[in-house]
Amino acid sequence: MALFTKEEALNYHQYPRRGKVEVIPIKPCNNQKDLSMAYSPGVAEACKAIAADPANAALYTGRSNLVAVVSNGSAVLGLGNIGPLAGKPVMEGKGVLFKTFTDIDVFDINLDITDPEKLVEVVKTMEPTFGGINLEDIKAPECFYIEDTLKAEMNIPVFHDDQHGTAVISGAGLINACEITNRKMEDLKVVVVGAGAAGIACSKFYVSLGIDPGNIFMFDSRGLITKGRAGLNKYKEEFAQDREATLEECLKGADVFLGLSTKDLVSKDMVKAMAPKPIIFAMANPDPEISYPDAKDAVPECIMGTGRTDYPNQVNNVSGFPYIFRGALDVQASEINEPMKVAAAEALAALAKEPVPSEICDAYGVKELTFGYDYVIPKPLDPRMLEWETPAVAKAAMDSGVASTTIEDLDAYAIQLRDRIATSRKRINAFVESYG
Amino acid sequence: MALFTKEEALNYHQYPRRGKVEVIPIKPCNNQKDLSMAYSPGVAEACKAIAADPANAALYTGRSNLVAVVSNGSAVLGLGNIGPLAGKPVMEGKGVLFKTFTDIDVFDINLDITDPEKLVEVVKTMEPTFGGINLEDIKAPECFYIEDTLKAEMNIPVFHDDQHGTAVISGAGLINACEITNRKMEDLKVVVVGAGAAGIACSKFYVSLGIDPGNIFMFDSRGLITKGRAGLNKYKEEFAQDREATLEECLKGADVFLGLSTKDLVSKDMVKAMAPKPIIFAMANPDPEISYPDAKDAVPECIMGTGRTDYPNQVNNVSGFPYIFRGALDVQASEINEPMKVAAAEALAALAKEPVPSEICDAYGVKELTFGYDYVIPKPLDPRMLEWETPAVAKAAMDSGVASTTIEDLDAYAIQLRDRIATSRKRINAFVESYG
Repeated sequence: MALFTKEEALNYHQYPRRGKVEVIPIKPCNNQKDLSMAYSPGVAEACKAIAADPANAALYTGRSNLVAVVSNGSAVLGLGNIGPLAGKPVMEGKGVLFKTFTDIDVFDINLDITDPEKLVEVVKTMEPTFGGINLEDIKAPECFYIEDTLKAEMNIPVFHDDQHGTAVISGAGLINACEITNRKMEDLKVVVVGAGAAGIACSKFYVSLGIDPGNIFMFDSRGLITKGRAGLNKYKEEFAQDREATLEECLKGADVFLGLSTKDLVSKDMVKAMAPKPIIFAMANPDPEISYPDAKDAVPECIMGTGRTDYPNQVNNVSGFPYIFRGALDVQASEINEPMKVAAAEALAALAKEPVPSEICDAYGVKELTFGYDYVIPKPLDPRMLEWETPAVAKAAMDSGVASTTIEDLDAYAIQLRDRIATSRKRINAFVESYG
Repeated sequence: MALFTKEEALNYHQYPRRGKVEVIPIKPCNNQKDLSMAYSPGVAEACKAIAADPANAALYTGRSNLVAVVSNGSAVLGLGNIGPLAGKPVMEGKGVLFKTFTDIDVFDINLDITDPEKLVEVVKTMEPTFGGINLEDIKAPECFYIEDTLKAEMNIPVFHDDQHGTAVISGAGLINACEITNRKMEDLKVVVVGAGAAGIACSKFYVSLGIDPGNIFMFDSRGLITKGRAGLNKYKEEFAQDREATLEECLKGADVFLGLSTKDLVSKDMVKAMAPKPIIFAMANPDPEISYPDAKDAVPECIMGTGRTDYPNQVNNVSGFPYIFRGALDVQASEINEPMKVAAAEALAALAKEPVPSEICDAYGVKELTFGYDYVIPKPLDPRMLEWETPAVAKAAMDSGVASTTIEDLDAYAIQLRDRIATSRKRINAFVESYG
């Protein structure tokens, strides 16, 4: 099933050059004149212009296109708390995805900090460096406090992708799943297993999409979260139910299962006991709470999404963060707010209804992709997300009053974006190929 | 005299793309397989390897070739305390120089911090991210405490370039000036004007080169630094003299003038009153303490260095930091210590005695460059510094026991370096040219 061997993966990271990114000058630097502009004394003109008006930093530095991927390595992939050094390959990789899909430059910042207060203090001091902060692989519940505080205290977008990425992409799937199965958000009964960063964030986001919080049944490692349970953090408490119940009991008649926990938690019988045409996002990685074949075997008319490439409806954060940040940066948004995330989800949901060009089908080795049970979310390598999702996010930022600059013609913007990213990718590919 | 207009300098920073660097993926990222190695799940192999042995971070990430240029913008060029945002163009520019001359990747980290304790705390947390820390444009005396503390508490090289860059390059000039004028270091009487980062660091470094600290007469804005003056910081106190004297009095019979202050402090008469064949490093920028023509007019047989490109003996830090860090990183040194800095200065001094290839003369628009009064330091664009200075620094790191890896054949290393940097510069130039 694996696309590569362990050795291939390690070689990919080590050769022909170690790591996955390089910081390249983009201005000529070959003679005295070049050097005297890149550095002293010419650079003083840029410094003075920014000292006179801080907004000029967006003109004379790369700041407005530069995002920090910040992690302390406390919850890396499925590997757990492996620390900031061992987490660095992931953060470099995140930078690769940002740059590849949306031409956003990333510095990965791996911090040797466990205390949330200290992490907040440190990240705040970096505001002059960056145009945005992408928090990554920071464990719950600390991640909630860290993001909330940074959002409140910084004037640039702060976005914890493990929370909102999964929320937005699965939310897009949920919007379409409701349409296909003829359901209304407000009527859905949702069972969530996993009350970490993604579980909590998805649940909160689904409420933004119209789900009644009382209809969300959230499980953590101790079972259903109920009111009055000792030691409950305030993030879980928001979703606490009145009465105890088992997962099996809760799933009876449920419309939606959302899994962000571990493999094999859900049996075929449990799926059969759900409401007709159940919606199942089983996103444990690499092995979902129930496999796609098992779920389909239990109830052929189910909508099933996973984190896996090799099954339909892959919920992959790469369909979110690059495009959301691109839109936020392009209008110099001061934050990434709820309307912007909802706009991203709705744009992805709308795109899934469009005919899929054959080159996208080819990339996934399928004959066709048609809106329906097995295609409710655009594929992660679908380049059209740029033109659908990014302008939608930019528009939502403008409409919700957090944008500092205005894009008048969003259609023209979408076309410019497409051309810009195509050119950027050509440039990157040529650079990669120059290693031979 | 200026090589460019203000508008040219601003345009250079803004077009065709804002700022001066871009973070480029160096591994292919065009299909599912690529993506699954760059990010999840393939990246997990690299993470696990580092979790098992932290030394693997040097193999599977860019860390061991990645330096942070860290500033709080408190003493930027001659502009003063303009803050971290307005200082960002300088830090980006520093990254450009690191990359251009020695293929070192740089993230510029501009921190909104004035308190030295806090700056130390924040920089320490970034150790998992970087292979080295270049402190930049941080004001004195805080810079001394900050560097000393970080050096003691971090396991990677920490180097405040404003201090040691100037010290090493002017130190190289001083070594050769002594040879040319037939002096011994231990006999020199030195007058230093300016007791900031560079003035203090140069004086301390000259002591490492053999000068008697009692023969150093240091002036700050209040005059000669003398014992018992109220409010003296401990860095200045190290050079305090017993008796008061004016600059004019001190310069009488002095062998060396070192200026790191402001223009026009030194008159022709003062130069005439110095010892025969005086050594003058007048490094105030952009206008030195005495101009080259005035110094030469006063005493034709003087050795005169400035910070300027348009006069002989330019003391330019770019002749130091890239090569020093390259050597330190290539042996994974835990610090940049005094023997490494002395080795750098001696290598530069030795290189100045070599015949200069015509292409270097051409780059500076001169017919020839011959070791002597007007050529005691290699030119800042001399590519041979890489092969002379970097192996010398690496060797000193190994000899002084701070290297974690060993380079067996330093001659072969020098040749590999030359080829590596030539290839890197071609790649960079092709990337720059791809902007058309």
